[in-house]
Formats: sequence, C-alpha cells, structure tokens
Amino acid sequence: MNGNFTLYTPTKVVFGRKTEQKAGELVRAFGGSRVLIHYGGHSALRSGLIDRVKTSLDEAGIFHVELGGVVPNPQLDKVYEGIELAKANGVDFILAVGGGSVIDSAKAIAYALAEPEFDVKELYEHTRQAKACFPVGTILTIAASGSEMSDSSVISYEDKKRGYNSDLCRPKFAIMDPELTLTLPDYQTCAGCSDILMHTMERYFTTGSKLEITDALAEGLLRTVMKYAAVLHEDPTNYEARAEVMWAGSLSHNGLTGCGNDGNDFASHRLEHELGALYGVTHGAGLTAVWPSWAKYVYKNCLPRFVRFARNVMCVEAGLSDEDTALEGIAAMEDYFRSIGMPVTLKELLGKTVSEEEIRLLAKNCALATGGKVGSAMVLYEEDMANIYRMAKE
Amino acid sequence: MNGNFTLYTPTKVVFGRKTEQKAGELVRAFGGSRVLIHYGGHSALRSGLIDRVKTSLDEAGIFHVELGGVVPNPQLDKVYEGIELAKANGVDFILAVGGGSVIDSAKAIAYALAEPEFDVKELYEHTRQAKACFPVGTILTIAASGSEMSDSSVISYEDKKRGYNSDLCRPKFAIMDPELTLTLPDYQTCAGCSDILMHTMERYFTTGSKLEITDALAEGLLRTVMKYAAVLHEDPTNYEARAEVMWAGSLSHNGLTGCGNDGNDFASHRLEHELGALYGVTHGAGLTAVWPSWAKYVYKNCLPRFVRFARNVMCVEAGLSDEDTALEGIAAMEDYFRSIGMPVTLKELLGKTVSEEEIRLLAKNCALATGGKVGSAMVLYEEDMANIYRMAKE
Repeated sequence: MNGNFTLYTPTKVVFGRKTEQKAGELVRAFGGSRVLIHYGGHSALRSGLIDRVKTSLDEAGIFHVELGGVVPNPQLDKVYEGIELAKANGVDFILAVGGGSVIDSAKAIAYALAEPEFDVKELYEHTRQAKACFPVGTILTIAASGSEMSDSSVISYEDKKRGYNSDLCRPKFAIMDPELTLTLPDYQTCAGCSDILMHTMERYFTTGSKLEITDALAEGLLRTVMKYAAVLHEDPTNYEARAEVMWAGSLSHNGLTGCGNDGNDFASHRLEHELGALYGVTHGAGLTAVWPSWAKYVYKNCLPRFVRFARNVMCVEAGLSDEDTALEGIAAMEDYFRSIGMPVTLKELLGKTVSEEEIRLLAKNCALATGGKVGSAMVLYEEDMANIYRMAKE
Repeated sequence: MNGNFTLYTPTKVVFGRKTEQKAGELVRAFGGSRVLIHYGGHSALRSGLIDRVKTSLDEAGIFHVELGGVVPNPQLDKVYEGIELAKANGVDFILAVGGGSVIDSAKAIAYALAEPEFDVKELYEHTRQAKACFPVGTILTIAASGSEMSDSSVISYEDKKRGYNSDLCRPKFAIMDPELTLTLPDYQTCAGCSDILMHTMERYFTTGSKLEITDALAEGLLRTVMKYAAVLHEDPTNYEARAEVMWAGSLSHNGLTGCGNDGNDFASHRLEHELGALYGVTHGAGLTAVWPSWAKYVYKNCLPRFVRFARNVMCVEAGLSDEDTALEGIAAMEDYFRSIGMPVTLKELLGKTVSEEEIRLLAKNCALATGGKVGSAMVLYEEDMANIYRMAKE
C-alpha cells in the first residue's frame, strides 16, 4: 500500500434555495471589489438570474461588468475576450454563473489576469506551469463537471480540447441552488449525471492500491447518483433529486473519491475529449458512448475492481465467475445509461457511423494529447484507443 | 426538505508516510515565519518526532519555540502559558503536534494572539464571538477528534469543559502520517475510533430531513471504521488499518457527514463533556459509556433513523418490527463497543458506582452548559440528562 495523498478543497460551499442572493457578500468576503460576471447563453438572462446576481453585487457595493456567450466546450477566443474586458475594467474577481464550461472559461481568464505577461494558452499546451491565479467564485446552474470545486479547467481551440489542472484555480466559493437546475432539459440533466458518475468511476477503476474508506464513499456516491438521475429522467422538477445530484457532482470531482488511490484512470475522459473537439458533442454523452467499449476492452486487466463494481454498485448477484460478474456489471451499467436516454455507441451519439479515417484521427489526437498513453485500469496506447473507438462505433 | 448547508474545509490534507518532513515547507506556504510548536507528553519527544519537525522547520529557515505538556482535556492554564510564550517570541503560526487536545489548545492560543485585547476564555464562555485567529497547522498523532480539519476547540477549566466553534480556527494544513499512530496503546486507539464513530453518529441521528448522499457517505464511514477499529484491537501495528481510521477521523468531523442535515444531535458529546470535566476520563470512552443509554432513552422519538442505522450499518436482518429492529441495532452497537474494549456503563468507565448526588451534579452542569437543552433525535432537558446518566450507571 502506498496510500499517500494530498487533498485540498478550500472552496466554501453555500448550498440551498436562494443562496445566489449571497453572491455579493461572498465576493466581498473573499476580497473581490471589481467583478467580471461570466455566463453562457440566454437562459441565465431570461430566468432573471443574472439580474439577481447583479442586485446582490450592487447591494454589497461591488462594481461589475459582464460577458456572456460561453458555449459548451468553451473556446479560447471567448477567454481572450474576457481577459481584455477584465483588464480594461480593472477586474479583480471572476464570478462564473453557469455550468462547467462557464467555470472553466472563468478559470482560464483568472489565470491570464494573474500572469498577464504570458499567453494563457501555454497552460493548456502544457509548455508552462501557472504560478498564480485571480480569485474565482461560482454560481452553479448545471450539476455535472464538478468544476465548482475542482482544480481542473478544459478549453477548446483549433480542433483541440485540452485540460489544465492546478490548485491555484480552485474556486473561493461555490453557490449551489438546486432550484437553478430545475429547468435544465432532460438530455443535459442526464448527461450531467453521467459525467458525475464518470468522475468517480475514473478514480475507481485502477490497478493500484486503494483506501477502503474511499471505496465506500465512491460506491455510496455512485448508487445515490444512479438512483436520483433515474428520478430526474422521469421527474425533472424534483427538488430533492436535483439537490442530491448537485452535491454529488461536487464531491465526485473535488478529489475526495480519489484519496489514497495509487493512480487514477481517466482514459474515458481523454477519449471523449477528442469527440468533443471534433464533433462538439455534449461531454457526458460522449463519455457514455465510449465507456461500455472501454470497459469491455480493459476489464480483464483490472478484474478485481470490475467484480467489486458489479457487486457493490450494480448489485450483480453472487454465484457467477469473476469474469462473468464483471461482464454483468458492465452490461448493467450500459443498460442503465441507455435507460436514462444516454448514447452507448458513437452512432447513437453522432447519428452517423464514423469512418475508419475518423477513428484513426481521433486515436492519433488522443495519443498526442496524452503524451502517447493514458489509463490505470489498463494503460492505453494509440492502437488501443483506436480499438476502443472502433468497438464503440455502433 | 430544507437541505441548505454551508461546508468549508480549507485545510490542506497531506497524508501518508513521512509527510511530517513537509512541515517546514507547509508552514512557509501558509505564511508562517515564527512558529510555536505545541505538543503533549513525552512520547512525541522520545519518538524523535519533535526533533524531526524542528529539522524540517530549520531547513525552511523558520524560527521556532516550543511548549509541551498539554494533557487530555486540555487546560486553560496551559493555553495562557502558550499565549505568553508566543507573544514574547513574536510567534505568527502555531504548529500543533499531537491529537485533539493539543490541536484544541493550539486553536485557543491562536484565537488569543489574534485578539490580544480580550481574554480567550470569553469565547468558551460564549460571552463573545471571535473575529480573527492566527494560523494553525497540525501534525496528527492520534486519530480521534477530527480537530485537524474541524472548526471546533474544547478547553477545560474550573471543573468545566467547554467548546467553541468557528471557521476561523480551521487549520491551514493537516499532516497525517499513519505511522505516527502505530505505537498508540489499545485503549487510546479504540477510544479514538469510538470518537470517530460518534462524530458521524451525532450527525446521523436526527429527526430533521437529510440528504441521501450524506447518509450514504455516513454509513460507508461507519462500516469502515468499525471494521478497522476491530482490526487494530487485534493488530495495533497494522498500517493499512491505521490509515483507514486516520482519514475517516477527519472526514467524520470536518462537516461532510452533516451536509444537508436539518439539525445535528450531539447530546452524547455534551453528556460526555461533563464526565470529562468531573472525572478527567478519556473522551471516546466517556462517549461509549453513555451512548447505549442515550440510544435506548431516545430511539422511539427518532425511530426511522434507528431502523435505518440497524439495517444499513449494523446489518440487522429484515423481518423484525421497526421497534425491535431499532433495539437490535442499539444492542449490536453496544456489543461492538464492548468487543473493542470500550466501557458501556459509567461503572465500567469509572470503576465505581456514581452516586445520585453526582448524577444530579452532572445533569445540572450539562443543562447549564447547553443552555438548558440539547439534542435533535430527542430534545433533552435536565431531567432527561439525569435519567440517561442514571440508566448508564451500571
């Protein structure tokens, strides 16, 4: 057992109904006085959320400018736009109002403001490490990415989708009002829940040693998210289910479910990133489209974990061989994803059959982005990546 | 469902073998330059731990003075001694090397240094709220109190044992090397594990609404701690078990297991505090001595929780009535505490039968300390407190 780990989750979580009214007070408490409000599409405006946030900032005497228009798979161009606007207005705090895309874009802007002498793109190209970051706060409107507590930021540019991780960008606070997610469409809701599940599963399926306590937490999280994602698929306005999923989303990606893990996997995420870059698919849907094929490709190399997953999460009955137990667990998860309307093949994801050329390009790009290999359950090289994309084809 | 909550766990956790070598680097990272090393008895000196910590601070160029001699149920007199020493040496950072008593004493010193115009005792008397606190770091040597991540500090004086809670005192970092706990005697080990279990149970047994996700985490924690406390009772030098218990100890009292709870109980803790104040008993042992009587006294008022606990934590089989299920669960927990060598009555705890006068005094003091009432599973008044002490007598 190695079991050494570092966990740093400084984000103050303020959870519950109407908590967005505390935005001004929280920005002030964390030292902000001139705020860039960063958000996505029209829904945040139409719902009145942006107005409520501005009112809260005004009441706290905080100056603000705003920049909307962040898209899913957030673009570097928008980041540059935010940097210019923030500089022109002497912004000292970025307030992200949205989901993971908005928060990730806000983190990129915050990095850039703290080290204005550099191009922030270098971080995502991994040619430089960040030494500082401006403070970021978040008001979450989609339970999915966990970016509201995580050290992660993913930005897209030039057909690439690249992540950069550093504790420096962990948000100062995360306002989480489940009511803000009640109107989220079914597909986005279930894709978000799938992303949440995958953040825990990426840490769960590893060949290295584990802390039992981390497994117990992970399995509890997975069972609970599966239960309430299914509730939301039937009843999207269920506040309790929205609350369960929202909090689980943060816990699944703030580091907790990886404590003591000797390595994490994250191959499915890296395989998905190339789908996001090339086709602009919804992240969670891209994940469910590759996971079953990934699992069937790697499970023999990580059998004890797949057996444990089958028993403790998917409730596969005793009596089968280890291999059959593992396969039953994978099949049950595939059925589950399908049951909440998620694609489990690339054809279901994209509405078309990908060509062999596309598969080769996806695998090449994935190998490039991962330095040639990725994974812990099984280390994947470019040929493995291509094999998994091919298995996932239809 | 209310379900609103705030969670703030800024403490950087650095977990694993030899992590105490990072003390200097971490103090430096969190802005300390002149350190008071605060510790308890001779074991930290004899084991060479204090020397290793000093070496790490020296290597980071950090000035240090030291003050040992903190006792279980840490005393206000020692806090005052620390304040004087720290002031005389321009200390700007308190490094606690020990268990909950040392950390709580360090927190009290840190409060006092930040507001030197006041007597820190006022916080514990609840006649004043803290507005500031000097930074505290910890090197944990006993898994029990969770004080290494918690907002809590408990200090004893004049036959009183009083707590004060504020986010201001949450440690900047917690160094947790399970190896440091390998030599802890069996009784202290199992008392510590009992304290850990109780921190989760105090949040679990409430009449208010809950987040299911919090329940799932709590139950996973309880099952895992019970498993590994039993391992340590047989095999105290088992590193894996020490690691499991150590990390569970932090998670059980950093707020995670209370997220979304509509109220917490903590009656057993308050009943124990008076035992600690009057008899100086080991905290975890005081808790197990009162819990079974508390549970039998209150369970009817909080039956669904006790049924759930019996099923999901104590694995009581289906088929019994709710009431019998609850009672079976309580009996199983009582048996468990006994199996790891913990007292389950005051006679077992103290080695004597407490008198009716003592019971009246304990209940009177507990009522005084709690403003007349405490609890969520059932609200207890002075008469209830006396009844529980009386039930726990032998």
